[in-house]
Amino acid sequence: MKAKVHITLKPGVLDPQGKAIAHALAALGFGGIAEARQGKYIEIDLAEADRARAQAAVEAMCKQLLANTVIENYSIELAE
Amino acid sequence: MKAKVHITLKPGVLDPQGKAIAHALAALGFGGIAEARQGKYIEIDLAEADRARAQAAVEAMCKQLLANTVIENYSIELAE
Repeated sequence: MKAKVHITLKPGVLDPQGKAIAHALAALGFGGIAEARQGKYIEIDLAEADRARAQAAVEAMCKQLLANTVIENYSIELAE
Repeated sequence: MKAKVHITLKPGVLDPQGKAIAHALAALGFGGIAEARQGKYIEIDLAEADRARAQAAVEAMCKQLLANTVIENYSIELAE
């Protein structure tokens, strides 16, 4: 089973990387950009075939390692 | 219109960050992880309301700034 994890900064948390992207795009001539925010995207190949157990394992991985839950949100999608 | 951009390393390109994640998860006791790969996830708020023009603009952004198309793939999703 494959897990697709998105880790994004919580709303309100300053995102200097996103601001740099927005400024660089404006400098390249792309107009009308209100905001850009950057997050992480992680794909994990799991041996676990049971959907519920895979979901629980990936949630534990996010809490323990992948996301800093003080300032980041995570979302998990599972695919065969 | 909001654009969600995923930037991932092409298959076969070495991903040391993903390997580090897989090793760290194994060290934390999570078994059965065949592979982990890390990419970037960027959300862009666009003033453009026309879907086709927004898609074209974000593709140009990916090619010019966001992705290194020699080693990275990008995918774009547009949402209202």
